[in-house]
Amino acid sequence: METIKDLQDFIINGYKHYIPHISIDSAIFGYHDHQLKILLSSYKALDGYCLPGGYIKRSETLDEAARRIVAERTGLRDLYLQQYKTFGDPDRIKWDEFDFKKFMEKIGVKAVKDSWLMDQTISVGYYALTDFSMVTPKADLMSDFCDWFNIDEIPPLLFDHDQMVKDSLHTLRVQLYYYPIAAKLLPEKFTLTEIHTVYETLLDKKLDIRNFSKKLVFLGLIKKLNEKRNIGPHRAPFLYKFDIRMYNKALETGVTLT
Amino acid sequence: METIKDLQDFIINGYKHYIPHISIDSAIFGYHDHQLKILLSSYKALDGYCLPGGYIKRSETLDEAARRIVAERTGLRDLYLQQYKTFGDPDRIKWDEFDFKKFMEKIGVKAVKDSWLMDQTISVGYYALTDFSMVTPKADLMSDFCDWFNIDEIPPLLFDHDQMVKDSLHTLRVQLYYYPIAAKLLPEKFTLTEIHTVYETLLDKKLDIRNFSKKLVFLGLIKKLNEKRNIGPHRAPFLYKFDIRMYNKALETGVTLT
Repeated sequence: METIKDLQDFIINGYKHYIPHISIDSAIFGYHDHQLKILLSSYKALDGYCLPGGYIKRSETLDEAARRIVAERTGLRDLYLQQYKTFGDPDRIKWDEFDFKKFMEKIGVKAVKDSWLMDQTISVGYYALTDFSMVTPKADLMSDFCDWFNIDEIPPLLFDHDQMVKDSLHTLRVQLYYYPIAAKLLPEKFTLTEIHTVYETLLDKKLDIRNFSKKLVFLGLIKKLNEKRNIGPHRAPFLYKFDIRMYNKALETGVTLT
Repeated sequence: METIKDLQDFIINGYKHYIPHISIDSAIFGYHDHQLKILLSSYKALDGYCLPGGYIKRSETLDEAARRIVAERTGLRDLYLQQYKTFGDPDRIKWDEFDFKKFMEKIGVKAVKDSWLMDQTISVGYYALTDFSMVTPKADLMSDFCDWFNIDEIPPLLFDHDQMVKDSLHTLRVQLYYYPIAAKLLPEKFTLTEIHTVYETLLDKKLDIRNFSKKLVFLGLIKKLNEKRNIGPHRAPFLYKFDIRMYNKALETGVTLT
């Protein structure tokens, strides 16, 4: 949506092009140099922050819709993106506290009495992971802010988005052990120290580097190469890479650990 | 819905009590004595089988709706039940191939021209696991059949339900290694042979019993008790139990393997 006219039409007629009652909300995590952040935005006329979200076009798959929504905010299409959970508690959005008239006024559209947007909505949760130094966050016509927050400095969020952050981070952290999620944050061949730093940051905990690497190899996620990198006098650690073949096999057969 | 009158009202006015455009479909897996089965039903006037499904009441959470839908078919409320993925491909239901008029005729309601049911629908996928010997499957007013099928004898299913079976089984099999999913299929204290049989059947593959048990203990899923069971002369294997404390901790902190 490029103009206020588009937005007005969306509020009135959007249900013809988008599926009503269902949205997508994305927890977009950003890593760079020992730091983990999350992208938050705020809607005009609403106090507080929330995850970036949007609706699903009737012609799109869920993954396509999520990728479009994430690209609209980050400019990136090629990041790790995964559906993790759908949220449908009846009270997840408190409509009686939401002043839709004021909202329309603030975003500059003519007030309409009923909108398809003002009804019970279930939200499909996606999470994404990227290098935040590659991203210039973008607000849109309905929001007046969109930027990175440190993961340990997230303010209380609107709607059920605190729960979404909790669940998406949980999923990311569990899946780190059986999907090559961190692959895009590392060079193709990396040292144990490099992957150890990424994992410690994403998991927000200290990991014994020997145990940690043993586990990742044991689980078949990474493999040791017969190749070293010279990083200084007497310092030439072995290189590792993600074992994508093992990963694809696991996806195919549904078994990761046997 | 108990009567044809309820069903007629559901087709016309159901959107007032249920959320339109969203359904739940459940892959209900049943285990017993080396056998893995899945519950399939068939709609009146539709050729073929599908997973049992239903709609979400506006007052229900998704989990409550799934539990109600599964209970309607199995009579059981207390089984392992988990949301695994939401399905929303635009062509997942081929409406132009679906004769709604014939369907209404077959189920015995008066034909209506438009129903809220006849529009693009996204489906939240749940899977359940139970002991099939405890279940007497029940059809409902819209279906004329509901029964267990061996997992390796599933016919091609309607809609996108082949994909749902594939994805739910994949999730079940991956999650077997970090959730105590099999707990309800075993006595509280069990031998390695007993859990080995359940895992081999659910995973449909041979597992080296020593490696297998080492992994489950390593992952913190089960723990060895200082207790044996006498099962014959000179045969008294150690007993194990699921480590629910470890499991709850993992759920809380989001980390399973450190």
